[in-house]
Amino acid sequence: MDLIQELGLEVYPQFTEGKKVHHMGGANAKIRTYTSSIPSFSPLVLLDFMHFLWRMESLCKSVCVENPMKTPDALQLDSMTLQSYMDKRIWTTQLMEELELCTRSVFGMEPSQLSFLYFLMYSAAAGGVMKLLETTPGSAQEFRVKGGTQQLSERVAEQLGKENVRLGSAVTAIWQSEESVEVKTATSTITCKAIIVTCPPHMAGECYKAQIEYRPALPLERRSLARCMPVGHMTKFIITYPTAFWKQKGFSGEIVARPSVHCPFGVTFDATSPSGSPALVGFIAGVQACYWNSREMEDRRDAVVSSLVKYLGPEAASYVHYEEKDWSKEEYNGGCPVNVMVPGMLTFYQPGLCKPCGRIYWAGTETATRWCGYLSGAVQSGQRAALEVLADVSPAVLSQSELQEVRAGLTMAPSELSRVWDRTGGSASSSRLLVGLTFMAVTVGGAVFWLKPGLGKNWLSGVLAVIQR
Amino acid sequence: MDLIQELGLEVYPQFTEGKKVHHMGGANAKIRTYTSSIPSFSPLVLLDFMHFLWRMESLCKSVCVENPMKTPDALQLDSMTLQSYMDKRIWTTQLMEELELCTRSVFGMEPSQLSFLYFLMYSAAAGGVMKLLETTPGSAQEFRVKGGTQQLSERVAEQLGKENVRLGSAVTAIWQSEESVEVKTATSTITCKAIIVTCPPHMAGECYKAQIEYRPALPLERRSLARCMPVGHMTKFIITYPTAFWKQKGFSGEIVARPSVHCPFGVTFDATSPSGSPALVGFIAGVQACYWNSREMEDRRDAVVSSLVKYLGPEAASYVHYEEKDWSKEEYNGGCPVNVMVPGMLTFYQPGLCKPCGRIYWAGTETATRWCGYLSGAVQSGQRAALEVLADVSPAVLSQSELQEVRAGLTMAPSELSRVWDRTGGSASSSRLLVGLTFMAVTVGGAVFWLKPGLGKNWLSGVLAVIQR
Repeated sequence: MDLIQELGLEVYPQFTEGKKVHHMGGANAKIRTYTSSIPSFSPLVLLDFMHFLWRMESLCKSVCVENPMKTPDALQLDSMTLQSYMDKRIWTTQLMEELELCTRSVFGMEPSQLSFLYFLMYSAAAGGVMKLLETTPGSAQEFRVKGGTQQLSERVAEQLGKENVRLGSAVTAIWQSEESVEVKTATSTITCKAIIVTCPPHMAGECYKAQIEYRPALPLERRSLARCMPVGHMTKFIITYPTAFWKQKGFSGEIVARPSVHCPFGVTFDATSPSGSPALVGFIAGVQACYWNSREMEDRRDAVVSSLVKYLGPEAASYVHYEEKDWSKEEYNGGCPVNVMVPGMLTFYQPGLCKPCGRIYWAGTETATRWCGYLSGAVQSGQRAALEVLADVSPAVLSQSELQEVRAGLTMAPSELSRVWDRTGGSASSSRLLVGLTFMAVTVGGAVFWLKPGLGKNWLSGVLAVIQR
Repeated sequence: MDLIQELGLEVYPQFTEGKKVHHMGGANAKIRTYTSSIPSFSPLVLLDFMHFLWRMESLCKSVCVENPMKTPDALQLDSMTLQSYMDKRIWTTQLMEELELCTRSVFGMEPSQLSFLYFLMYSAAAGGVMKLLETTPGSAQEFRVKGGTQQLSERVAEQLGKENVRLGSAVTAIWQSEESVEVKTATSTITCKAIIVTCPPHMAGECYKAQIEYRPALPLERRSLARCMPVGHMTKFIITYPTAFWKQKGFSGEIVARPSVHCPFGVTFDATSPSGSPALVGFIAGVQACYWNSREMEDRRDAVVSSLVKYLGPEAASYVHYEEKDWSKEEYNGGCPVNVMVPGMLTFYQPGLCKPCGRIYWAGTETATRWCGYLSGAVQSGQRAALEVLADVSPAVLSQSELQEVRAGLTMAPSELSRVWDRTGGSASSSRLLVGLTFMAVTVGGAVFWLKPGLGKNWLSGVLAVIQR
């Protein structure tokens, strides 16, 4: 918000007035509408939701966003998927369906693809799980930027002087020596004191077409992140209409729909511009993006339109223009909206995300601790990386508190990998619970073998052979 | 084995006679020795092991290796990590430690990093979990090839005519058209009717230094596999001695040791050559590879030697030569021993692993259905891909049964992604179990609100606010 103000941009709230369409709850679900902030669940689903949300928000509060491995039970939380946690804690299939849709809309991925600790860290960085989903003040969907968010980059570029910003010059290599770092493109080499790499981890690695060759090679933990942090799948579409017929009919334009072979999107919102040009925006995400990705654009468009007709009425068929963007097809992007972590990644590689490698510093929203994954996080990470560089190349321009802040971040403890193996050496609570029971079984088993010596000395091999047969 | 015989190579059994060293069971464990096929566990651990193994082997038998998504409960098994399953089913911390070590030794990864369904599929492709670990006939560690396994490639190359095999020519691009496919290296272009790509998925993608540019672009599911199938971390070392002192002392050379900051390896074996040159081979894998990777070679070597002294005696200090190979540092390899799948990958991308893309066919051990991940699997996958190409470019040379086999493989149903969303629409068994309980809670809750109307209509927002506070 500071940067938006500084650059003289304006925001306007996401339009949410009117009926919201809600079509969830299994294949035979009815289409319902509601106007409150959460859908009109049945009491059972509502109780399940409250209980689950209470657990999640408590867990979020226990997360150390700056160093997720300091979270209580970090190893266990990072060794399971979000889906595993949901399977354990959610009672009703409708809530399961709702939360799958939420995950898909927020990450472009399914709950089975995310580390549970990563999900908690991401939510905690936004202030809680509901903050990711809501349009209320302080939540992720609260407002839009008049004229579009790209103006942020454009206006910063103007301040820097456009002659100092080189566009269309892909970096192919970053070589560093004791004295300096060389940044190479296909046609030029620029020698720097320090460099901040801001692209998402999977693009910043020795990976993809946008590969960057590093000399010396980056450490294993950084390479593993660059190679294996998956990026979500999301196709965004904007469909424009001659009139905002949905508003005239009392709809807000928000639709939440369960996936089916007929409906490609999970959510839509009103996207009417501040000047009043009527439009809806929607997302084809996660498993739905996988499913629809291989079809022709015309098929997706027709399915989107017929779904809108179903939910908002026949007026939806008379659209002006349908435009879509499949981010997975962008050479220098490869996915949307964000890189995520799979189980074990925080445990084994997380310190590689921000830790400078010599003269190379890392920014990008994936490295943020406030609104990680969002535009806000990108700005925060840029400021953090800029301070790190300044602390190194011209510390005199920084205040004492800024210098301290940078040093605190940089001297953060490295990953304590020995915790991984010490874990199993330590806690044995569950085993002790079962000692009694097991001891009895052993005693009985032992007695049987004692009484039947015919089973002989090789009973162990015998049992093994039976098990493996 | 057929190929080994055909090429006139010989095998010899892995040496296993004598005492095996076993140092597991928490930080204060004693060093023990045993001579049977499994370590001398306490009755409790043994019972836990038998119970767990029985469950695993039953699950393995239910897996459809050709199409893992046809396995009962496939979606659920692929949405959890191996660690999640172990947390649920293992009672004793020692067994947990043992199985973590096994996973590390087999995959170069930790149980928290693997999809449980992928683990089951991989085990089933070998004939069961124990087959991966044992040295008994038909198991993975049964024998070694005299003179080394690279002779397989070398002798096949001789048969093909060495002038037909181009080494040191990295493929940079594969472009296909209606008529043909062009394979490009830095200096030449070869036009083919079909091409078999055999490198591991992460090297075959538009990824890494060994990146290949595909035109047209590969489908999303194939790109996702190429980008995100992690590869294990494994450093192999061979240490040679003037005499096989361990044999003289009654040891087999097999050591199984828990990770610590002092001991880099998890397992060692005797590696004395058929001609009698004494050596031990060992592996630094998974979390231990992450931990030791950033150290200097001398540090690792000294830690290996001092650990061997601890387990086998002071003679271990007088080695002739220490040689190690960190596969993660190989430009055209990047890891060892195999690419694995994280949760969700089988569900969303698995059909991309083998499905030909026009004139491009895929081989490599990751695509095998027998001994996936092993040399055997690599051979099987090569034969399968060769048949696929022949069926396309000169079907006349194939028998009727071979043609049928190829067609059966190629017409395998594509991924039914709609199952992912239909799942939550269907089974609601657990929810029903809890309906009674929940209903009671709702009733009580409802009564409280009824009796305290002061909570008003906005109680929902109130509760939400409290939860999020």
